[in-house]
Amino acid sequence: MAQALRLAERGLYTTQPNPRVGCVIAHGEEVVGQGWHERAGQPHAEVFALREAGPRALGATAYVTLEPCAHHGRTPPCADALLAAGIGRVVIAAEDPFPQVAGRGIEKLRMAGVAVEAGLLRDAARELNLGFFSRIERGRPWVRVKLAMSLDGRTALANGESKWITGEAARADVQHWRARSSAILSGSGTVLADNPRLTVRLDETPFTPPWRVILDRQLRTPAGSHVLDGQVPTLVLHADTAGQPDHRFERVECMAIPSADSSLDLHAVLRLLAERGCSEVHVEAGPTLCGALLATGLADELLLYIAPLLLGDAARPLLHLPALTEMASRWSLHTVDQRQLGGDWRLQLRPA
Amino acid sequence: MAQALRLAERGLYTTQPNPRVGCVIAHGEEVVGQGWHERAGQPHAEVFALREAGPRALGATAYVTLEPCAHHGRTPPCADALLAAGIGRVVIAAEDPFPQVAGRGIEKLRMAGVAVEAGLLRDAARELNLGFFSRIERGRPWVRVKLAMSLDGRTALANGESKWITGEAARADVQHWRARSSAILSGSGTVLADNPRLTVRLDETPFTPPWRVILDRQLRTPAGSHVLDGQVPTLVLHADTAGQPDHRFERVECMAIPSADSSLDLHAVLRLLAERGCSEVHVEAGPTLCGALLATGLADELLLYIAPLLLGDAARPLLHLPALTEMASRWSLHTVDQRQLGGDWRLQLRPA
Repeated sequence: MAQALRLAERGLYTTQPNPRVGCVIAHGEEVVGQGWHERAGQPHAEVFALREAGPRALGATAYVTLEPCAHHGRTPPCADALLAAGIGRVVIAAEDPFPQVAGRGIEKLRMAGVAVEAGLLRDAARELNLGFFSRIERGRPWVRVKLAMSLDGRTALANGESKWITGEAARADVQHWRARSSAILSGSGTVLADNPRLTVRLDETPFTPPWRVILDRQLRTPAGSHVLDGQVPTLVLHADTAGQPDHRFERVECMAIPSADSSLDLHAVLRLLAERGCSEVHVEAGPTLCGALLATGLADELLLYIAPLLLGDAARPLLHLPALTEMASRWSLHTVDQRQLGGDWRLQLRPA
Repeated sequence: MAQALRLAERGLYTTQPNPRVGCVIAHGEEVVGQGWHERAGQPHAEVFALREAGPRALGATAYVTLEPCAHHGRTPPCADALLAAGIGRVVIAAEDPFPQVAGRGIEKLRMAGVAVEAGLLRDAARELNLGFFSRIERGRPWVRVKLAMSLDGRTALANGESKWITGEAARADVQHWRARSSAILSGSGTVLADNPRLTVRLDETPFTPPWRVILDRQLRTPAGSHVLDGQVPTLVLHADTAGQPDHRFERVECMAIPSADSSLDLHAVLRLLAERGCSEVHVEAGPTLCGALLATGLADELLLYIAPLLLGDAARPLLHLPALTEMASRWSLHTVDQRQLGGDWRLQLRPA
């Protein structure tokens, strides 16, 4: 199963909106077939593994990281393919949460007399597809907020200058996190200040370009901004009071979203993104949007790059959060991973 | 020599104001004597090692982490003791920078026909006594600024509450850094806000209690403050314009220090502490004093405890530093050490 998970990981940047799935077919310790899902619309992991195994699939055990599908989607059901090949036993890491599949793949296999076990390395399998599970189970994507700061928690000088706080290794690392995401979310304030491209720059690794999603309540994104260039699918979300999008937005899709107080309803934004098939959303935005996601409990993960330098208290803060009056109200996180990237540190944290 | 350094480290908490020194006496690979300096006024490392070696010191090699003294201090010169015991060869890690010793120990040994080598593991030996070398070579102590903050670089809530940001493991760790210091430096603002004891709480490890040094320009430390209780030697430094210290200060020593602008002259403060024999100064103070030490280049090291929580931008900043107008002016540091302490992180950093 560990090997099946490693295979599944090969689809990290390409399977959107599908989950990353790997499959190993073996007789005892002898592996006879391996496969992974690479791209939506293409065959699933099981099919590739069965092709490799050929007649040796007969009576073999299939290790699959996700419950085989039992429905006709863009490809025929994998459960049927496993049965047709005469697989004798199926070991599954994580049950499929998708309403059309949940439990049916397992049921179909068992009904046909195949021994099925589920739960082996389930946590790792769910972790690999945390966005997929979040989207199906919670109706919203997994939201990962990326921030880069100095040791004293500052993201830019008072005058807005922020190039560059972190070093090359950290900035290159960010590209991988962007690439595995279904969408990159930002706000019009960041667009106005930095005019970012919010695209993925990876030289040799194939990836499915993530959507750009810009929260622009008042449609103030300037003409000529990189995010409006139509190079990748882009969605601009605005308040219904903002009027009709003009010619600036002709290369992107615009959509009105309910607004609460003076900001767009973030729950509605995430619901929409989930409906559009977004599993992991990568947020690169300013202290207001990032703070709002954290304060409302919608940020599932913080990807924090820390550069060993000081910018002082006149510089810009990491996050706008409501003022606390007691320490007990603080936002607690736990560290999932930490590593050094060049001279910088990267902490991966989740709400405790 | 590595073993001699390990022995020297045993004096980490006790040798102030003396350096930590270790000595190993050996014939080839056979160790015949070991010693370390434990406390000022007691014998030096070489003496203990020679005592253990006895007659087997004859013709042996002595590994000493610091150049043996050649002058009569509170104890007789160690160079003489090594000669008297008939040591054949002396290997030294770091040369003694002290004017009364520098090079004379080596010279004395060589004149007497003993082979002397210097420089083996010199960096490690200097690191172990970085405060001692700083005091003698630069005329000021090694200044270590300890700070505890949230992930977003905040040290307390807006209302001042700061108990507790970091966990027990981090707070216990701080006691060891206090214990190895000659003095704990703080400001009257911190005393007014938190009324800290600034003493060392270590259960089973013997240590020499560090001085408490309070910068109190206007002598505003309130009566009954823990730092005025006389439990450990305490020095209150004030401006000469502050008038005469009153009864509040009867259990501590007070001294006037030149002030520049609206703060005490930090160079003068550190010069005074060096003259008093302070090697390592541990700073636990607010954002103003800590920021001033960093901004003036007087902070040699930052000991930064980071707790995985967020306090928001209304909370108090880590450091008051002059506002920057360009990224090139930022204060760059390099990471000397990092580790996890419970759920918290500790970074040890020095100016790059």
